[in-house]
Amino acid sequence: MSKIITVSREFGSGGRQFARNLAEILGFEYYDKEILAEIAKNTELSEEYIKSVVDRKPHSLFPISIGHSFSSGMDYQLMQMQQIFSAQFDTITELAEKSDCVIVGRCADYILRDKNPYRIFVYADMDKRIQRCIDHVQGDESDDPEVVKKWIIKLDKDRAKYYEDYTGQKWGDKQYFDLCVNTSKFDIKNLAGSIAEFYKKYSE
Amino acid sequence: MSKIITVSREFGSGGRQFARNLAEILGFEYYDKEILAEIAKNTELSEEYIKSVVDRKPHSLFPISIGHSFSSGMDYQLMQMQQIFSAQFDTITELAEKSDCVIVGRCADYILRDKNPYRIFVYADMDKRIQRCIDHVQGDESDDPEVVKKWIIKLDKDRAKYYEDYTGQKWGDKQYFDLCVNTSKFDIKNLAGSIAEFYKKYSE
Repeated sequence: MSKIITVSREFGSGGRQFARNLAEILGFEYYDKEILAEIAKNTELSEEYIKSVVDRKPHSLFPISIGHSFSSGMDYQLMQMQQIFSAQFDTITELAEKSDCVIVGRCADYILRDKNPYRIFVYADMDKRIQRCIDHVQGDESDDPEVVKKWIIKLDKDRAKYYEDYTGQKWGDKQYFDLCVNTSKFDIKNLAGSIAEFYKKYSE
Repeated sequence: MSKIITVSREFGSGGRQFARNLAEILGFEYYDKEILAEIAKNTELSEEYIKSVVDRKPHSLFPISIGHSFSSGMDYQLMQMQQIFSAQFDTITELAEKSDCVIVGRCADYILRDKNPYRIFVYADMDKRIQRCIDHVQGDESDDPEVVKKWIIKLDKDRAKYYEDYTGQKWGDKQYFDLCVNTSKFDIKNLAGSIAEFYKKYSE
């Protein structure tokens, strides 16, 4: 059975960079946006369209109870969404079975729960998250700390809602993770190196 | 400045053993029950009496607001409690300044927050906690999983209330910690060894 690490993260915590570094150091496959491309292949929908659906708050469009009884009233959009969520499930499962990997977000910790993934949650203090976002400001994005803070809170909220609707679990609750790492006091690359060493011992 | 690690833990998670092993491996002082003995020295109260006060739910006896205005109505018991809590603060601060150390519980993460402690929270899945407690049953304690579970929940609740009254922070909330470690999949001693390696790199 392949070794699986899932990384969930707060926005601005450096979780994505951490996951990429961790995969590189361990020599594992890294899956993040690659998942959307795979879904596109499996569904013949465009990657852009899939992204627009996945990034939408599914709770308003895809109530979790709907899966139980598809009746004649179901419209085309809803069918397509079900197709995408089902493809996301299949894609993540297939990728995880193929080889050792690090998978970022997309409820992979929940989807793969029967495959004994090592589930990491990455977070940071709010002031550090704001600073990290400001350091990576692009184009016409604001670098006003108050604006950035509101934006972080909104993105976290959307992420939490998405996760909770999809899994029925509280987003970021440590009981669903094996390790929760606060990146505030660390250089991300060094942190990934240390956690890689830690993980190697765990998975020996 | 000395290196400080604070360990907070859920009951039955193996957090105390983890902390002791961590201190041994790092060559740090280890403070747990030793704190009560120090308080006894500093206050001339007996260790047993201090323990009985500290283990009581302080919220019912020592509302946090009382510290602000000690008036003539304050009774002897309350004065003694204030003395103990104040001695706990001083003792933990002194011990932490003396040498590199691992301190278990007693709100040390909060008391020492200005000394940049590395704050670890140790937790575990409920079934593992129940099993750990049953493995350590003594005398006439029950080994019925349902009884043990209720007992764990009660002890956690008391611990949370104590911490929240004393600090104004939510007990076990990961935002107040640098690392939250789920011990469920680990041998505690090996885990402490791995975290010791991780900590060494962090504190270099």
